[in-house]
Amino acid sequence: MALRRMLSPLAISMGDPAGIGPEVILKAAAQLARKRPIPVVAVVGDLGAMRAAARRLSAVPEPYSWRPGERPGPLSRGLPVLSLDELSAAAMRPGAPSLEGAKAAYNYIVKGARMALAGEASGLVTAPINKEWLNRAGFHFAGHSELLAKTSRTRLWRMMFAGEQLKLVLVTVHVGLARVSRMLSRDRVFQTIRLIDEHLRAEMGIARPRLGVLGFNPHAGENGLFGNEEIRAIAPAIEHARRSGIDAHGPIPPDTAFIRPSGAFDFDAAVAMYHDQGLIALKTLEFDRAVNITLGLPIVRTSPDHGTAYDIAGTGKANAKSMMAAIEYAWRAAARRQQRALRAA
Amino acid sequence: MALRRMLSPLAISMGDPAGIGPEVILKAAAQLARKRPIPVVAVVGDLGAMRAAARRLSAVPEPYSWRPGERPGPLSRGLPVLSLDELSAAAMRPGAPSLEGAKAAYNYIVKGARMALAGEASGLVTAPINKEWLNRAGFHFAGHSELLAKTSRTRLWRMMFAGEQLKLVLVTVHVGLARVSRMLSRDRVFQTIRLIDEHLRAEMGIARPRLGVLGFNPHAGENGLFGNEEIRAIAPAIEHARRSGIDAHGPIPPDTAFIRPSGAFDFDAAVAMYHDQGLIALKTLEFDRAVNITLGLPIVRTSPDHGTAYDIAGTGKANAKSMMAAIEYAWRAAARRQQRALRAA
Repeated sequence: MALRRMLSPLAISMGDPAGIGPEVILKAAAQLARKRPIPVVAVVGDLGAMRAAARRLSAVPEPYSWRPGERPGPLSRGLPVLSLDELSAAAMRPGAPSLEGAKAAYNYIVKGARMALAGEASGLVTAPINKEWLNRAGFHFAGHSELLAKTSRTRLWRMMFAGEQLKLVLVTVHVGLARVSRMLSRDRVFQTIRLIDEHLRAEMGIARPRLGVLGFNPHAGENGLFGNEEIRAIAPAIEHARRSGIDAHGPIPPDTAFIRPSGAFDFDAAVAMYHDQGLIALKTLEFDRAVNITLGLPIVRTSPDHGTAYDIAGTGKANAKSMMAAIEYAWRAAARRQQRALRAA
Repeated sequence: MALRRMLSPLAISMGDPAGIGPEVILKAAAQLARKRPIPVVAVVGDLGAMRAAARRLSAVPEPYSWRPGERPGPLSRGLPVLSLDELSAAAMRPGAPSLEGAKAAYNYIVKGARMALAGEASGLVTAPINKEWLNRAGFHFAGHSELLAKTSRTRLWRMMFAGEQLKLVLVTVHVGLARVSRMLSRDRVFQTIRLIDEHLRAEMGIARPRLGVLGFNPHAGENGLFGNEEIRAIAPAIEHARRSGIDAHGPIPPDTAFIRPSGAFDFDAAVAMYHDQGLIALKTLEFDRAVNITLGLPIVRTSPDHGTAYDIAGTGKANAKSMMAAIEYAWRAAARRQQRALRAA
């Protein structure tokens, strides 16, 4: 507990002011205030927008102005907000995205990331932005991960998801499925295995993670009968991982990977070769509980696994489960990162 | 009920004598004998092997010798078996596959299919065979579907699966994932949509099936950003289907296709572009309950969604849920097929 108290707050970037970000942050904060240990958080965003969202909800912590270096009080008494600039009323209208809002959302992420890089925040949780509006505002990033990789000068990173039943990492993400085969190399698969292994050891406290590496083809190719990606890339990557002391298994036939006679997936995490291979299983199993994590960054970074949901923004209907899970996951990871840093020091 | 009584029995090919086929047929028959209406079935296989399996189990119907044209008695009194030839003791040893057994298994399928084609059987349910042993015995087929397509001279057929929560059909099946893109044409996707629509109307009694057609790429390609299969093949196929009076929707982003705010998939069936896209969702949702159906054949054909399981054959541990579901599904489909035939006559 002493350790946890020493941690800087987690920064939560507020996301698109017209989306459900402010609402799910407030709802999650209200629920987290009743948990033990309570994560220490600070929103990076706009005080006016957070207050407006709080007025539309009941029983959520009151947002108040906060500056890095100050010690936030307990969540039950209020939600600290580092307010970067004053949004116009138009930009904070729920469901009505704007260039002003998109630019502000971009700034919240970059500021949050810099705080985490500087140690002023113990990690970064990002509320949803809208890729299309980000692009319209002149910021050409496919999403948070790409922007954070650039901000932190990270070349090798991977997208990971964690639910209650299943954790998984993707070797490739937003690329046409016809191009994935060409992208699968022994090295790319191995680096993915290495990153998830490192994360589970260092940040999740699993001494020797058991990893299930999926095949690419139906039945994992049946010894080359349907495709050779298993033979030329995946099996050699697993082999290399095992020689490096990583408990990696596979290539596993993808369709039966997520079931076992017991009904439970018996690996600490799965390594999926492409977006839908991992995410069909994840979303089918985990509904709205999954957390998105970027592996390979110098900072802890998580986010809820949903978008801005402009259609329900401002109605109070947004589900904060995934945001809560994202905050708790980041807090756990940050605490372990710090423990290790202290032990190493 | 009068109609059902008029139906010829369903033929059940016994499958590999060394596998769990005989056991799951007997267990399923015992459970089906207590259902209403009771499907009328006849095993096409080997009487000795069925009797040996029955001796290893308790409370299953006693196998007895039966010939096509004879009226089978109720399942509770015994299980009719059309015995094609006498298997040696070695060939019926559980867990010990043989060339003799593989050849026999091939003959059971062909005989069952011919009975169904001739109207001596109302349809065919196939117990598992082993592809490797089938090939060693000189029969070069990827599986039941390919063999049945050849036997019935069917060129256009598709593999379908039905569970309790989800029905789906695959546009492509046992082909390397890197080759799928080239195989996706408007026509191939459309024919798949047409076959599942026809099956659901004619054999499942759904007046206007609502079909969810999946995309191929992450997020269904995001308007061509990641791959063009949606634009060049899938969307045109859906358009064509809708103009033909089929209630087809999509292309649906694959990862979120199987979840809804309610938690339920809200289509009568999904059309999946490749093996694992459909089967990851199906196996994750349905565990051991799914039925495999071949669409496009002139006969009704189903099978349980598992293999010979040599490792547990003879131990009494095999789960008959999928075989039961396969028999019930085929019986329902056969009854509707006959109703329509009578109405048309």
